[in-house]
Amino acid sequence: MKRIAIDMDEVIADFNSKMVPSFNQRFAKSITHDDLDGHTIQQLFPELKSDINIMIGESDFFADLSVIVDSQSVIKQLSERYDIFITTAAMEFPGSFTAKFLWLEKHFPFIDPMNIVFCGNKSILHADYLIDDNARHFNGFSGEGILFSAPHNAQVEGFRRVNNWQEIAALFLR
Amino acid sequence: MKRIAIDMDEVIADFNSKMVPSFNQRFAKSITHDDLDGHTIQQLFPELKSDINIMIGESDFFADLSVIVDSQSVIKQLSERYDIFITTAAMEFPGSFTAKFLWLEKHFPFIDPMNIVFCGNKSILHADYLIDDNARHFNGFSGEGILFSAPHNAQVEGFRRVNNWQEIAALFLR
Repeated sequence: MKRIAIDMDEVIADFNSKMVPSFNQRFAKSITHDDLDGHTIQQLFPELKSDINIMIGESDFFADLSVIVDSQSVIKQLSERYDIFITTAAMEFPGSFTAKFLWLEKHFPFIDPMNIVFCGNKSILHADYLIDDNARHFNGFSGEGILFSAPHNAQVEGFRRVNNWQEIAALFLR
Repeated sequence: MKRIAIDMDEVIADFNSKMVPSFNQRFAKSITHDDLDGHTIQQLFPELKSDINIMIGESDFFADLSVIVDSQSVIKQLSERYDIFITTAAMEFPGSFTAKFLWLEKHFPFIDPMNIVFCGNKSILHADYLIDDNARHFNGFSGEGILFSAPHNAQVEGFRRVNNWQEIAALFLR
C-alpha cells in the first residue's frame, strides 16, 4: 500500500483564515488575504516576526482553526486505499503540540493517532508522497513532493501543484 | 552522511529509575528493578494498566528523568559523523510532548530541534539505523533496527543488541 504524508497548516487546517484577523487585531493592521500573495505575514512584516511567532506559539492558537474544504471527505476516501500519515512541522512552535493533537482527534477521528508525526525536518519521512504547502520540506524527501497551493507559495515552481482537495482526489482516486 | 534515529525512553532517558519508585508510591507496591525482567510494569499489573498510563500521561512525568549513562557524550561524538534524529513515540501520551521537548533542549542542547520527531508508528522514519528498546518499532522500518537493552526486552531475539552507550560508540565510532 502506497503511503501519503499530509501536512496540517494550510493543507488541512485553515491557518490564514485565523492568522489574518488575529494579526490585524493584535498589531493594529489591516492586511487582507490578497496582501499575502507570494508571502507569509512574517515576510511582509519582518520587524514583527518574533512577536508574530509568540502569538502563533500560544498554546491555543491552533485549537480552533477551520478545516480546509473537502479535506475530511477526501482523506477518508484516501485512507481506504493508501497508508495515510499526518506530518506537521510543530517543532518551531512547541507550545502547539497538544492543541494540534486534539484538533486532529476532533476533525480527523478516523486517522490513527499512531500515524501522526510532529517533526521539523521532513526529510526524515519515509513515504511515497508528501502533500505540503512549503516546498522547502521536499528538500531531501525521498518520495514525491506535491505542492498544495497557499498564498505564500504562489510563485513557487518545480513541483506538481494541487489547488484544492478535489484535485488531490482526481490525482489519487481515479 | 548516514542517518541514525535514536529513541528517548530507556535509551537516552532513564524511564525506569523514575517509574519503579513512582509506581510503588502511587499504588502502594514494592516492586524492584529485578521484577521487570522481561516485562513492563503494565504487563506485570494488567489490572492497573489504565491507572499507570494516567500517571505516565501527566504533563510533568517526563520532565525530570535522568539521562542514561554516556548517552550525551556518545551522541555528541556521533553527531559529528552522522545525521542524528531523536525519534520518540509520544503519541500514546500526548500530555508529554512539551516536557519531552524541554527535556531534550536541556540535556541535548546540541541536537537541532528540527531533528526531533514525535511519532507513533516508526515505520514512517527514513533513516539507516534506529536505536530503540522496543523491537516492535523495527517492524516495517526501512533501515536496521538496533535493540537497546532494557529489562522488558531481555528475552527478545533477532536483532543486533547493544547493552549501553559504550557499545554504540564501539559500533559506530570505530
